[in-house]
Amino acid sequence: MAQSKKLSAGITRNNREMADGRTIRYYDTAGQTRTAPDLRPVETQPEIGELRLDPLVNEWVAMAAHRQGRIFLPPKELCPLCPTTGQLLTEVPESDFEVVVFDNRSPSLRPPTGDWALPDQVGPDTDLGTAAGKCEVICFTADHGKSFKDLTASRVRVLLEAWIDRTEELSLSPYIEHIAPFENRGEEIGVTLSHPHGQIYAYSYLPPRVEKMLAAAKKYKESNGKVLFDEVLAREIRDNERIISRNDRWIAFVPYASRYPFEIHVAPLHPVADLTGLTDADREAFPEIALDVMKRLDGVFGIEMAYIAAWHQAPVRTGRDLLRLHWQITSVRRAPGKLKYLAGSESAMGAFIMDMRPEQSAAQLREVTV
Amino acid sequence: MAQSKKLSAGITRNNREMADGRTIRYYDTAGQTRTAPDLRPVETQPEIGELRLDPLVNEWVAMAAHRQGRIFLPPKELCPLCPTTGQLLTEVPESDFEVVVFDNRSPSLRPPTGDWALPDQVGPDTDLGTAAGKCEVICFTADHGKSFKDLTASRVRVLLEAWIDRTEELSLSPYIEHIAPFENRGEEIGVTLSHPHGQIYAYSYLPPRVEKMLAAAKKYKESNGKVLFDEVLAREIRDNERIISRNDRWIAFVPYASRYPFEIHVAPLHPVADLTGLTDADREAFPEIALDVMKRLDGVFGIEMAYIAAWHQAPVRTGRDLLRLHWQITSVRRAPGKLKYLAGSESAMGAFIMDMRPEQSAAQLREVTV
Repeated sequence: MAQSKKLSAGITRNNREMADGRTIRYYDTAGQTRTAPDLRPVETQPEIGELRLDPLVNEWVAMAAHRQGRIFLPPKELCPLCPTTGQLLTEVPESDFEVVVFDNRSPSLRPPTGDWALPDQVGPDTDLGTAAGKCEVICFTADHGKSFKDLTASRVRVLLEAWIDRTEELSLSPYIEHIAPFENRGEEIGVTLSHPHGQIYAYSYLPPRVEKMLAAAKKYKESNGKVLFDEVLAREIRDNERIISRNDRWIAFVPYASRYPFEIHVAPLHPVADLTGLTDADREAFPEIALDVMKRLDGVFGIEMAYIAAWHQAPVRTGRDLLRLHWQITSVRRAPGKLKYLAGSESAMGAFIMDMRPEQSAAQLREVTV
Repeated sequence: MAQSKKLSAGITRNNREMADGRTIRYYDTAGQTRTAPDLRPVETQPEIGELRLDPLVNEWVAMAAHRQGRIFLPPKELCPLCPTTGQLLTEVPESDFEVVVFDNRSPSLRPPTGDWALPDQVGPDTDLGTAAGKCEVICFTADHGKSFKDLTASRVRVLLEAWIDRTEELSLSPYIEHIAPFENRGEEIGVTLSHPHGQIYAYSYLPPRVEKMLAAAKKYKESNGKVLFDEVLAREIRDNERIISRNDRWIAFVPYASRYPFEIHVAPLHPVADLTGLTDADREAFPEIALDVMKRLDGVFGIEMAYIAAWHQAPVRTGRDLLRLHWQITSVRRAPGKLKYLAGSESAMGAFIMDMRPEQSAAQLREVTV
């Protein structure tokens, strides 16, 4: 891989090797030099985990037993995602950064060594697979106390470019089938590091929800000749009542059949399969809608909302003309003191019950003064 | 429906009408008379909710907006699931009870009125369905401070008989396709009433997870000629290392591809499609293994574990020879101060990551002195 790379909009990427062999990538707007060495002692890397087939539903479950002991909500002074200052050596050797992406220290999925293939999914006696893939961490800012919504438009533009770059590069690995950049925010959903950051999971198998989206899209294409997501978007635009934000290139809406009290889908108006397909105009217009949506979410109750914000993309090698890029933001917060929990119906049966009409949450989100 | 009914093992059922027209059913071992009237003022019943199709994955989502205001963790003195004593009129008019089942006051699913049919699932323009079905509450004991694991064997036998009776009766409703008795326990998973109780959800559609189990079982039958769950059970018995409890009629194991730090499946050794198929010998042997398993779960860390315990049955009208009755108990507790949360990978992608090997949790469960 190239160590340095020029990306769109004057953004550059510089790769550096970490002490234990992992890679850190600096994404910058001003061509900064990033040469600070990682001075930490080398730690042993955990072994690659197992993939086991849950035969009852024919889904892979990744086993990453080494993650049990990982760091849990350290105080700000010990945050491993802050830049290195003075004696505290963190994951980021530089004393400042814009956006960085580095390989996860406790990855659920790791690059395989030697020959590698996923066993066929066949039932209770499926051979064990190795939990191949890649897990990366993406830091949005060096400022520990900020949130996504506090970023400048220019910073969101860098972040988007980093997501695009990672999607492009990870897509080249023969063992990677699907790439999902996402952000978990809030202790309520188990976030163990409060520094503003996201993750990039690159799977060696189709994640079950993607597989299901692909099956639905395929079935729809066969019977209607159209791309399902395009029709979903057309319906939301026609209905109009659940749209919460839009600009020339993007639209944000609460979907007709939301599963969470606050759920927002953000999609480009000109459909693309994945992040790499976004045009320059799409890229320029993204920060505005992203920040607008995130500010609305925190504005509803005037508190920091717990959320998962996940990019859904077409898989790397299949369904490229069936699935469309969009960003799904879901929050389990249904009122200031109340969360929605996934209990018996949702968790055991997969049957979601919504306590709130999507039109109501869309209205609440629209009413926020941004 | 018969008002009184003799069930197995000398257990009787007595139905009574509640003030607002709902039904309460008393399950008793000594033929008690249950005639106390419900003296509460009549409240307006909420309207039936909507079923909306999430077209991206072709799954129904039930919208029950009236549930937003339901009662949340009331103090013991105001518990609506305790028997009625003195001035506090609860959901149970009698001053004592063994097991009762009554229609949920804030049901997610309700019996439809008039003609009713589920629209075909076809895409973004699917007609709105009504959230038909039935939600019932089942109280395990009049004793507010107890848990499932504190019940006597005789009480678990009554509980099982109530589950069987409800499955049998609900199966007769033309609009019910699937019946799922489950218990949610613990504030960590959002339980709003701490009185020991469970719920029975009777769906007018196949819950997505059941649909997926059915598809996997069908595929396996077509290629191997065998019933998938029987083969899964055979593999667990052969492997032996994840079995945590067994008797002549039942077996309990941590499944090979668990998704939760503590996950236990309990199944009869002689397979049946649903609860109504259990023989007298199965019924008699169930309390022992159920109590053993629940005591082990709380014994692992010496604390009350949050869990979901859900009966998986064959659907009412389809897959009767493909799916098998079993009880899935899952806990998100991975250590005394730590929970497993479903975040980006699990929630957005459906891809489960396990931080613990199933063999390890099986060993921990086996080591508990019951």
